[in-house]
Amino acid sequence: MELISIDDVRAAATDIAGTVTRTPLLPTPWDAQTWLKPESLQPVGSFKLRGATHAVARLDPAVRARGVVTHSSGNHGQALAYAARSAGVPCTVVVPEGAPAVKVDRIRARGAEVVLVPPARRLVEAERIATETGGALVPPFDDPHVIAGQGTVGLEIVEDLPDVDVVLVPVGGGGLSSGVATAVKALRPSAAVIGVEPLLAADARESLAAGAVVVWDVERTQRTSADGLRTNLSELTFAHLRERLDGIVTVTEEEITAAMGRLVRDARLVVEPSGAVALAARLFHSHELPEGRTVVVVTGGNADPDVLAGVLTAGPA
Amino acid sequence: MELISIDDVRAAATDIAGTVTRTPLLPTPWDAQTWLKPESLQPVGSFKLRGATHAVARLDPAVRARGVVTHSSGNHGQALAYAARSAGVPCTVVVPEGAPAVKVDRIRARGAEVVLVPPARRLVEAERIATETGGALVPPFDDPHVIAGQGTVGLEIVEDLPDVDVVLVPVGGGGLSSGVATAVKALRPSAAVIGVEPLLAADARESLAAGAVVVWDVERTQRTSADGLRTNLSELTFAHLRERLDGIVTVTEEEITAAMGRLVRDARLVVEPSGAVALAARLFHSHELPEGRTVVVVTGGNADPDVLAGVLTAGPA
Repeated sequence: MELISIDDVRAAATDIAGTVTRTPLLPTPWDAQTWLKPESLQPVGSFKLRGATHAVARLDPAVRARGVVTHSSGNHGQALAYAARSAGVPCTVVVPEGAPAVKVDRIRARGAEVVLVPPARRLVEAERIATETGGALVPPFDDPHVIAGQGTVGLEIVEDLPDVDVVLVPVGGGGLSSGVATAVKALRPSAAVIGVEPLLAADARESLAAGAVVVWDVERTQRTSADGLRTNLSELTFAHLRERLDGIVTVTEEEITAAMGRLVRDARLVVEPSGAVALAARLFHSHELPEGRTVVVVTGGNADPDVLAGVLTAGPA
Repeated sequence: MELISIDDVRAAATDIAGTVTRTPLLPTPWDAQTWLKPESLQPVGSFKLRGATHAVARLDPAVRARGVVTHSSGNHGQALAYAARSAGVPCTVVVPEGAPAVKVDRIRARGAEVVLVPPARRLVEAERIATETGGALVPPFDDPHVIAGQGTVGLEIVEDLPDVDVVLVPVGGGGLSSGVATAVKALRPSAAVIGVEPLLAADARESLAAGAVVVWDVERTQRTSADGLRTNLSELTFAHLRERLDGIVTVTEEEITAAMGRLVRDARLVVEPSGAVALAARLFHSHELPEGRTVVVVTGGNADPDVLAGVLTAGPA
């Protein structure tokens, strides 16, 4: 299976420059050796805008006019709607019936057409629309352009902190971690790139140990609050992680909540649970991690206001 | 009275580069013509780090070893402690007895010495310490180096958005607004720089209308939730604002709270009330503002967690 290269990530960086925010590295008040990469500050609130923007930029000109389709109603759906509108490309997002109205409204507000279908028919319906319209299906992570786009996070980390020693990156479907590992290991081979998963969705750790993709079913992974990380790897992302990731650490739900609180109270960043798992590893699992200058990727900020308020009133961990 | 120049701001930019975070301009999801400058992401949670860092960098070498002193227990005190420690300079912060323990702890955590005195004796005590030790008193805003340091916010705005039309900046003691107006009017004379004040602390508007500094006493200004903006102008900041500011808009307490909510929920930024006033002007007073590409300076993020939780659970405005 062909893996993406640092040149693919560099090409993505050129494509996304006008649409994606160049996030800074933020020093943390509690530790002089830790920096945050706040992707929660992207226009759609997550790193997903990088991959979506690059995928849209690389559409075949004929396909471009026919539009893009996806079946994610979460951060990738929002990101694709935003990227498509920025590029003047039509976008359809297939959303499961029963999805929260706020999500549907947000996707519509970004100019995309929403098609509601029974949950089990999402993927099939997205494929049908792509075939019927001649447009392109842009998946959330199982795509070389999406992976290369997410990899620009790693490129920017090494640009801003050339002597970085450790990069901690959440693992869901593996698009971000595959891209970041590709960029960081190419530019700074001595740095360790460590994936972080919720203990309740540790399918990537199990897959890497088994040497093949191990699927955890939805009933099992939905127990974690980190809803962005419930997804399983694809063959493509597994191949990248097996080759380029230096290890995986798992964190508990309590640790995720405590890390969220730290980010909101002390780093002044609004984050969703998935966005806090890498910091949870740094705060509570440092004995399992290599030492040195560490960058924590804060992936997303689309938190439920009530959950966030609960974290704030719970007090310091 | 001699005003600072764009060259002073450029010199400050060089001094602060290693210590201060280069904040990006963030597009807003609700308005394609509005960008946020999130100074809440500075290591101490506010733009005050810029002025403090520049003031410390410009100390006379002999004074440097004797240290710096200030009488602010708020964002400037935190900022000076951080800047001094980064430069290896001793720092003393004079704090009124009865100040919240969390503030005192934060200043101590940043390596500064805390001296507790009765509130009325703060300034006198800070001056006494400076005289006794031969160190330098670094005031929160009434100082050319502090003003030039804060002006780097304006420099970065024009660098990142060269065709900016309007800059909205909160006015407290006037250090930030003086610096930003200096930089923006020098680099982009056609842009309007508009100050924003709480209606309950509209002393700068009254001063500019009267042609001289008008002092509002503490009993009056303490009614605003925007505690960073209760301060009066100095002769030095008044002289800058009279010459370089294009106008002042005032906002109500309800508007400040609504803007805080918008920033937390939709821009994923934790802000304090003072940090939300400029957005309140953009959201609720656009009829009083020039049209065009507008940058809103979000000055600080040191919000009380309970206040923030209340804003979140109150729902959208």
